[in-house]
Order: sequence, then structure tokens, then C-alpha cells
Amino acid sequence: MKKVIIDCDPGIDDAMAILLAQRSKDLEILGITTVHGNADIDHTTANTLHLKHVFAIDAPVHQGAGLPLNAVELPYPTFVHGDDGMADTGEVPGDAIADSTEAEHFIVDTIRANPHEITIIALGRLTNLARALAIAPELATLTKEVVIMGGAFGENQFRGNVSPCAEANIYGDPDAADAVCLAAWQKTFVGLDVTMLCVVDPQRQARIRHSGDAACQFIGRISEFYNSFYASIGYTAGFPMHDASAVAYAIAPELFRVRTGPVRVVTNGIAKGETILNREPAREYQEDHWSDIPAANVCVDIDAIRVLDLYEHTILGA
Amino acid sequence: MKKVIIDCDPGIDDAMAILLAQRSKDLEILGITTVHGNADIDHTTANTLHLKHVFAIDAPVHQGAGLPLNAVELPYPTFVHGDDGMADTGEVPGDAIADSTEAEHFIVDTIRANPHEITIIALGRLTNLARALAIAPELATLTKEVVIMGGAFGENQFRGNVSPCAEANIYGDPDAADAVCLAAWQKTFVGLDVTMLCVVDPQRQARIRHSGDAACQFIGRISEFYNSFYASIGYTAGFPMHDASAVAYAIAPELFRVRTGPVRVVTNGIAKGETILNREPAREYQEDHWSDIPAANVCVDIDAIRVLDLYEHTILGA
Repeated sequence: MKKVIIDCDPGIDDAMAILLAQRSKDLEILGITTVHGNADIDHTTANTLHLKHVFAIDAPVHQGAGLPLNAVELPYPTFVHGDDGMADTGEVPGDAIADSTEAEHFIVDTIRANPHEITIIALGRLTNLARALAIAPELATLTKEVVIMGGAFGENQFRGNVSPCAEANIYGDPDAADAVCLAAWQKTFVGLDVTMLCVVDPQRQARIRHSGDAACQFIGRISEFYNSFYASIGYTAGFPMHDASAVAYAIAPELFRVRTGPVRVVTNGIAKGETILNREPAREYQEDHWSDIPAANVCVDIDAIRVLDLYEHTILGA
Repeated sequence: MKKVIIDCDPGIDDAMAILLAQRSKDLEILGITTVHGNADIDHTTANTLHLKHVFAIDAPVHQGAGLPLNAVELPYPTFVHGDDGMADTGEVPGDAIADSTEAEHFIVDTIRANPHEITIIALGRLTNLARALAIAPELATLTKEVVIMGGAFGENQFRGNVSPCAEANIYGDPDAADAVCLAAWQKTFVGLDVTMLCVVDPQRQARIRHSGDAACQFIGRISEFYNSFYASIGYTAGFPMHDASAVAYAIAPELFRVRTGPVRVVTNGIAKGETILNREPAREYQEDHWSDIPAANVCVDIDAIRVLDLYEHTILGA
């Protein structure tokens, strides 16, 4: 089994991703770290603790960063995930308590204790990863792989969801994301180019909602809010599966096609949060901020049906 | 006939473009304005005056800006166009004199005198156009159309030639290019997405070089330098036809497929000179620097063979 740390900001699709990881026979969750993003850090931590309970996860939950590296708080996407980040169902008690070790220290300690064995699955803003790297730059070579739900690389029409050229997780802390890009760890971006192609249609939603399993029924309930948001912006075929696609990559990378090259993140200006892959790394340019940057894998295509089946069959235990 | 002003920085492919415009029965050149870019302004003006002589063009030549709006001189691409911007053949005398009216004033005066009738074909950095707009903002509504060779919009693998995400003409004065984007004139970008698909192969080069016509023979001679540069970076099938493709758009827009939406230019940072089209202008974003920006046409596909045939047949008078 692949040992994983899940860094997340639940968030409705984070819940789907965590359940997929928990029920996959190929992954072992060593810990879950929380970060600001789909809601503030208090809510994302409370939501994660609730998921730990509902999904019967043994691994500890460690609270992480409440602000991006530049310390400027951004608005939270309440219209996507609800005021509480979890569809406002009133089901999250909010009195559970996270482990006392902060996220960044848990990440550092766990990777040092398991060199070359840990895969980090990052489903939110990349603040915790950047802070862990700042404490321990050697993580870049001690980590097995980082799988990031984030970015949009211009493979198709899906170029941004926070701005016309930026995806939310990267935009939410572009300085942290660029620091993650600059580090020499094995890393893969699972961005809008592929997650927007992976659509959970109403039939699949119904099968999950109507299963006899409490965890799946919870996913079904919170997904309705998410589905309504996407319907409101014109996605009537269902909702795209963002975070769970990154977990699917950790389980079955063969269901994705990647391009490899250095990636940088625009940290300021009109394109803030844009992820840019240098597609011709061997070429000499007059101005090249990508030279000598370690390569990343960027997902450019996905076997969407097989990824969706992997998700459904795994969480339903089928 | 469509009345045109050609704003250019010859430049080898500018020469091809100017000859195409001169010999097209559909275009009437009212004047040629020069700008820094493929070489410094003294060379681009001398080269333009030489082309006026070799191509027997009646229209006047007006010298324009020697520096971008920010007044910081950039290196010139001598490895693409030669030290003199025209393949270092030694054929450009350099003693001819441009018209005394500066380019920006010629542009303003000509458009005011011919309201809604002038198409500007911009083949270099956009400094002259931005300066003309600054003098006379009403140009945005008095100009028939602006056709710009510039930009790269991520339709395919050709995303930049000066940096991994920036095309040379836009990068060479990104502030001017963004000002051109912000103005409400009818405008079309003919960028790397299409010009890189329009390849002048060795057979076509030979037919032009070996024709009996002095102008075409001159194009043939200077093209060898250009072809060698592209061969040196791996383009062995011939050289791409950048500037002449923009003239072809002015003659036969039906040979191009466009997408329409607001375009902005990144003016600073790692993505300096990147052109970004908002592909979903109706969508609401958390951060949107494209809202309320007038739409542009962006060429996303080209009937390359017909454009190349149009070029060859027109300059050969066939």
C-alpha cells in the first residue's frame, strides 16, 4: 500500500476524495492535514474531523495554515461549498479537536520518519507544503511524490475558475504554489484540464446517494449543494470531480496522460495564480524563468469513465 | 480596395508582408510606419525605405518609436533577422530619408481624414499604435480595423518565441499591447497559434527565389537567413510565415477561424508579454481583469495552404 498524507480543505469534493482514499486498498492514510481554502481553517478542520468520524478513519487530523504565505485573507467560495464549507447541512458538530501537532510539523516529521515512502496528496491551497519545505528543504528529495489538485495548463477550454486564467487552489496561495514548483520533488498536477472532463452525472450521484452506506449517503447529501452550484453556471450534465481525481491519480496513474516540464506560477498581476508549463524546455529563450526549474508532470488527458468507475466502485465497496 | 497603413519593423518577414500588400489587388497602401523591433528604429526605417524602392511603392514611409513605452531598450533579434534587420546582405544603402511627419501623427491624421475606412496592419511592437491612441483616443472608433501579427493564445503547442509564454511583438512592448487591447477598436490577433502552422517550404522558397522578378529575388535572398535561423532551432520543413499571414488576414479573413473575447497582456513578471483571452466572457469570476474590456478576434486556425498560395501567387503576379 502507498503511504499517503492528505492535505485538504473540506470542501465537498475533498470529502469525496478522502472517502476514496480511505476505501482504496492501494492507499494507507498516515494523517490528514488541513488548510484554509474552501472555507476558513476552523471550518476546514472541523469538517475534516467530522469526515474522520463519519468515514471511520483512524489516522490523525492536524490543523495547518489559516492564511496564505502573504498573510492576506481571501474570500471563501461559500457559493460552491456553503458557509461552513460542507454544504450547510448542520451535520458538522464542530466540537472535535485536532491533534496538537501542527500540520507542517506533522508533514516534516512523517516524511523524515518514512524517507522516500510518502505520497502527499494536496487538495487545497499549497501553504502547508511550502511551510514544510521552508522548515525542511530536504523534503524535496525525501518525499516519494506530491500529487496536486490544482492548476490549468491550457490543454482545452478550461483555463480558470477564479479568474479567466487561474484555478482556485493555486490562486489561493500563488507564492506557496510557486515555491512547491521550485522544489525538486517528484510532483504531478491534476488540474482543470482533466478534472473538468471527469463529470459525475445524475445517475452516478443517485447510485451513491441511495446506497445503504452512511458515508456514501453523507457524500450524496453534500453533493447536492455542489451540483446546484455547477448547474447554476451552466454545467447541467453533472458536477466535475476535482479533488477525487487527484486521489485517483495516486491510485491509478495509468488512467492519466501527462506532459513533463518545468512549471511556474504567476504570483502577481492580472494573471495571478496562472500555472505555466514550459512545453519546450530544451529551447533557448531571450527571457526564461523556467530554466533550471525541476520538471513536473502535468495531466493533459484522463480516462474519465474509468476514473469515475474507480471512484464509485471503491467508495461503494463494489 | 481596402485602404491600409502598415506599421512594421523590417525584418525579413515584414518584407514578405509588405510585398504581399503592395501586389494585392485588394489593398491600397496609404503609408508605411516604422517601429523598433526586429532591429533598432534607424535600421527598420532604412530597411523600409529600401523596400519602398525595391518594391516600387508610392506610399510614404514615416519613422516611429525607437523605444517601448517604458523607455527601456530591449535586445534586438539579430540571430533571426541579421545585424541590420535585413539578413546582412549589404544591399540596404541607408541614405534614404523618411517623410518628416512622425508615424504616430501620420496614423492619427490619416484615420481622421478617412474615418471608418482605414485598416492598420501592425507587424511589430505596438508602440506607435499606443502613442497614436494616446494622442487621439477617438481612433478606436474611427479606425475600420486593426490586424495585429502578435500574441500566442494557447491553441496548440506554440506558446511563445521570446519566453515560454510570450510572442516577440507583444513582449517587445507589453504596455503598448495592453493599451491596444483596452481600446474599443475592431481588432484581430494573428498570433503564433496560426502563423506557426503556415510554413514556407523549400520548394515554395525556390519558386520565389528563381522567379524573374527583382522584388521576389530580393525576398528569396533575405529569406535564406531566416530559413537558416529556423533550421537551427529544429524547424526543418521550412520557415513559418508570421507577418505576411496578418496581411493575408486583411485580404482574405475567410481563410482563418477566429474566437472572440476580451484579450489582456501581462505587463510584468515571469509571464511578461503573454496574451490572455477570456474564453468565457459571460462567466462571473472572483477576480476578472477582462470584464468590460472590448472584445478582440483571435485567430485560432488557418487554412495554411490557401494562405501560402495566396502569398506566392500574389507576389509572383500569377
